[in-house]
Amino acid sequence: MKLYIGNKNYSTWSLRPWILLAKLNISFDEVQLSLDTPQFYTALASVTPTQKVPCLIDGDITVWDSLAICEYINDTYLSGKAWPADPQDKANARSLAAEMHSGFPALRSEAPMNIRATRSLTLSEAAQQDLKRIEAIFAEQMTRFADQGGWLFGQYSIADAMFAPVVMRLKTYQLSFGEMAQQYVNHVLSCPALQQWIDAALEETEIVAADEAGEPC
Amino acid sequence: MKLYIGNKNYSTWSLRPWILLAKLNISFDEVQLSLDTPQFYTALASVTPTQKVPCLIDGDITVWDSLAICEYINDTYLSGKAWPADPQDKANARSLAAEMHSGFPALRSEAPMNIRATRSLTLSEAAQQDLKRIEAIFAEQMTRFADQGGWLFGQYSIADAMFAPVVMRLKTYQLSFGEMAQQYVNHVLSCPALQQWIDAALEETEIVAADEAGEPC
Ligand SMILES: N[C@@H](CCC(=O)N[C@@H](CS)C(=O)NCC(=O)O)C(=O)O
Ligand SMILES: N[C@@H](CCC(=O)N[C@@H](CS)C(=O)NCC(=O)O)C(=O)O
Repeated sequence: MKLYIGNKNYSTWSLRPWILLAKLNISFDEVQLSLDTPQFYTALASVTPTQKVPCLIDGDITVWDSLAICEYINDTYLSGKAWPADPQDKANARSLAAEMHSGFPALRSEAPMNIRATRSLTLSEAAQQDLKRIEAIFAEQMTRFADQGGWLFGQYSIADAMFAPVVMRLKTYQLSFGEMAQQYVNHVLSCPALQQWIDAALEETEIVAADEAGEPC
Repeated sequence: MKLYIGNKNYSTWSLRPWILLAKLNISFDEVQLSLDTPQFYTALASVTPTQKVPCLIDGDITVWDSLAICEYINDTYLSGKAWPADPQDKANARSLAAEMHSGFPALRSEAPMNIRATRSLTLSEAAQQDLKRIEAIFAEQMTRFADQGGWLFGQYSIADAMFAPVVMRLKTYQLSFGEMAQQYVNHVLSCPALQQWIDAALEETEIVAADEAGEPC
């Protein structure tokens, strides 16, 4: 199984399936391409119809788009265990994952993932609303699943993989949450698989100008 | 089972799970709310954490977000049959659905769904690229699944539900595709379940100013 990803410093969409695979100990080969370079598009031309990362190649099966890759991995390698077993929890986890997949456009565009940087930023009203909703999600899940494993639904699920990039944004732009929500943020940051991704991001030197936002501090 | 939806004339996200349920003959109660009105927010306050439609209430289970609702319906009422059976096709169908869910932002914002209108519009370069990709998807699927039922993967799937709104946009803004892709557009437009939605949209009189784009013609 081969997972094509972008720069670890910047590529939020790549982080999602990568962290799911890494956290749940599914072995895969990583093919890293540098965003915004001619090589990126050349390498992907024959691999994926969207010419975007992430993309998973598993034998003769091609899956593109982060959420579809997570669902595929869950179906194929995890017998469905990457969603909570309880039907109500599963429905909620899927709702959160899909909400993240298509939502939060203001926060996403104003505060790009940029793991190695520390920046300050003034967020628009819309981005602040996005952030409030994310804080409410984290706080509610930490309350409902207190002491059950530290993840959004106690045990690790695709929902956690989908929200990993936003946790990295909080760190870069020095945004912090109330106590319950912050508990989840800290739990995510203490995850060894995520720490591996971060360590690799810190070694990278490529700069994607469009993703450099905010004032250094 | 209760599905909360918005105005049929405008609400793209609502159309997706609605058409899946209607097309596959799963019975449900529809609760329609008018977008952009105080009643909309009051009614949803105790129903969904996002205060957005669509939202599905099934006993004590709440599912919000169109894609999550489609997956839930598939799991709960269709024994998985709303995705193609073949693993490669299923992976592709999921990729297309997720690509639509998080993509095509330019087309989406420039050419809002507005079923009862006929308009002309000049699209930005980005929206034209979005449209090209959609045309390529339709053409490729019609080629791969020629004469197998007319849907993206032959038989109806969640991918078709996800792409239904974009077909309505093509009609409003008088955009047409090459022959292979147009074949799919025509097939969608001939679907009786969609025709029911369209008929109801034509009866609506509420105006959402933000979704009125282009020049009347
Ligand atoms: N919805 C897609 C989005 C993928 C995406 O936009 N990837 C970015 C990198 S994070 C990309 O490949 N950009 C290259 C380009 O658009 O030229 C997903 O979830 O995988
Ligand atoms: N990602 C969500 C988006 C839902 C959404 O944005 N719905 C719109 C109507 S089409 C809405 O409820 N807007 C009300 C608002 O934002 O105030 C989904 O797929 O269901």
